[in-house]
Amino acid sequence: MEPIKVMVNGLPGNMSAKAAEHILQDSSLKLIPYALTGPEIEATETQIGSEAVRLIRPDERQEMIESIKRSEGMVICVDYTHQSAVNDNAAFYCENALPFVMGTTGGDRTLLMETVQKSDTAAVIAPNMAKQIVAFQAMMEYAAGTFPDVFKGYGLDVKESHQQGKADTSGTAKAMIGYFNRLGIPFTKDQIRMERDPEVQRSEWGIPEAYLGGHGWHTYSLRSEDGTVFFQFTHNVNGRDIYAGGTVDAIHYLAKKIDRGAKARVFTMIDVLKGV
Amino acid sequence: MEPIKVMVNGLPGNMSAKAAEHILQDSSLKLIPYALTGPEIEATETQIGSEAVRLIRPDERQEMIESIKRSEGMVICVDYTHQSAVNDNAAFYCENALPFVMGTTGGDRTLLMETVQKSDTAAVIAPNMAKQIVAFQAMMEYAAGTFPDVFKGYGLDVKESHQQGKADTSGTAKAMIGYFNRLGIPFTKDQIRMERDPEVQRSEWGIPEAYLGGHGWHTYSLRSEDGTVFFQFTHNVNGRDIYAGGTVDAIHYLAKKIDRGAKARVFTMIDVLKGV
Repeated sequence: MEPIKVMVNGLPGNMSAKAAEHILQDSSLKLIPYALTGPEIEATETQIGSEAVRLIRPDERQEMIESIKRSEGMVICVDYTHQSAVNDNAAFYCENALPFVMGTTGGDRTLLMETVQKSDTAAVIAPNMAKQIVAFQAMMEYAAGTFPDVFKGYGLDVKESHQQGKADTSGTAKAMIGYFNRLGIPFTKDQIRMERDPEVQRSEWGIPEAYLGGHGWHTYSLRSEDGTVFFQFTHNVNGRDIYAGGTVDAIHYLAKKIDRGAKARVFTMIDVLKGV
Repeated sequence: MEPIKVMVNGLPGNMSAKAAEHILQDSSLKLIPYALTGPEIEATETQIGSEAVRLIRPDERQEMIESIKRSEGMVICVDYTHQSAVNDNAAFYCENALPFVMGTTGGDRTLLMETVQKSDTAAVIAPNMAKQIVAFQAMMEYAAGTFPDVFKGYGLDVKESHQQGKADTSGTAKAMIGYFNRLGIPFTKDQIRMERDPEVQRSEWGIPEAYLGGHGWHTYSLRSEDGTVFFQFTHNVNGRDIYAGGTVDAIHYLAKKIDRGAKARVFTMIDVLKGV
């Protein structure tokens, strides 16, 4: 079978480079050596493994994409760019009938959905590409909807650790609080215990040195009022491989959907997980 | 509102006594001072809190129950007896139109269901009354059905600790293995690490002295192939209060259902959790 052609936009950024590396490792995918990048990028090329990737700036992108489509046929775009580029890039993909996987967060999300829904193409839009964490959140959502108040009377403790540069509280932890509230436990977002000190992360949490600069560790602990029952859920992510792995799965899913004629459709990571 | 009258059968056994204590603490329930017991029990009375409960042996139960029904009206039975008594007791409850909560495990479960489904009464049949653990299993069942193979490539470690007297592997752990298999992780029941040594339980697990004789601790750890992602789920139960709490919830649920005319119906703990 012909490999699926993929263009990763946002290079030379961290997450886009990681996704590109995972794509290179998948023999059923072919990374095409072009990438849309921002107007502020001066380099004209970046290296991904042994591949030299030509960086395309906004002013030349229309001409270049037409040429790429002529030579490559269908190309799926992966977007790990910047929140300020989300809507403009989506419009560009849609105008050029390029199916895309949007891993960039921010921008006007309603407009983003509408852009796809009015287009002749389809997209996977996933602010969180970590499949297993998305699945765990879906389990919690299911429990909150199906068994409201089952943890009534329980106490909750939430702690999370991220690299020093992350100023805001974990979005995943905040979403989880919402589920725990529906499960019967009053708890507010400001009760989440945040850790951003690399010294504490290393000595008390045991986070490996190599990942002090990039990790997301979360632990939720629940104890019954009488103290006899204790639940604990932990999800610890080091680095970005989990997101790159999810990106690759999203590409495969989207390719299959396009192959079956999907148009004007937005898919989520839940759809990718379900695989239908 | 008139309290719901409850008769706890299986006294003076451990779990039945614990359930009876919880019933005494609930002002909307009234423990009636009678209990069906086995033919081997010589005592004619047992003490639950400040209540003296008259023990009824099989040869006198038909006569006694008719008298109790005349004086008390509707009575819900709670059964924490013995696996050898499950089917005979269920037949007795059904013949006498006594709604019941069956917490006893074992016996012929198919026959048990059929007995209720042919009767004029209804029952909650729940081999596990621990609501929160049942909810967690339902979450796992949901994930296994909705996101098959989402943990493909992950390694799994399962450890459980129970009181020294428990010879077999935890039934909950075995059920969980089935979910993890469907989530993509090959793992067999004999890979579950069982701990039954009170010394290790105290020193390594940190299980409180008071609960060495009665606890169920479980931890499931999942690690991705590349080692960058780690999930852990723990549920630790000390003593039997969680089961007694669930029994009380099941009584309330069943009373409501009977009030609305339920007949020939078997409910599960999942129904109790959903509350509908």
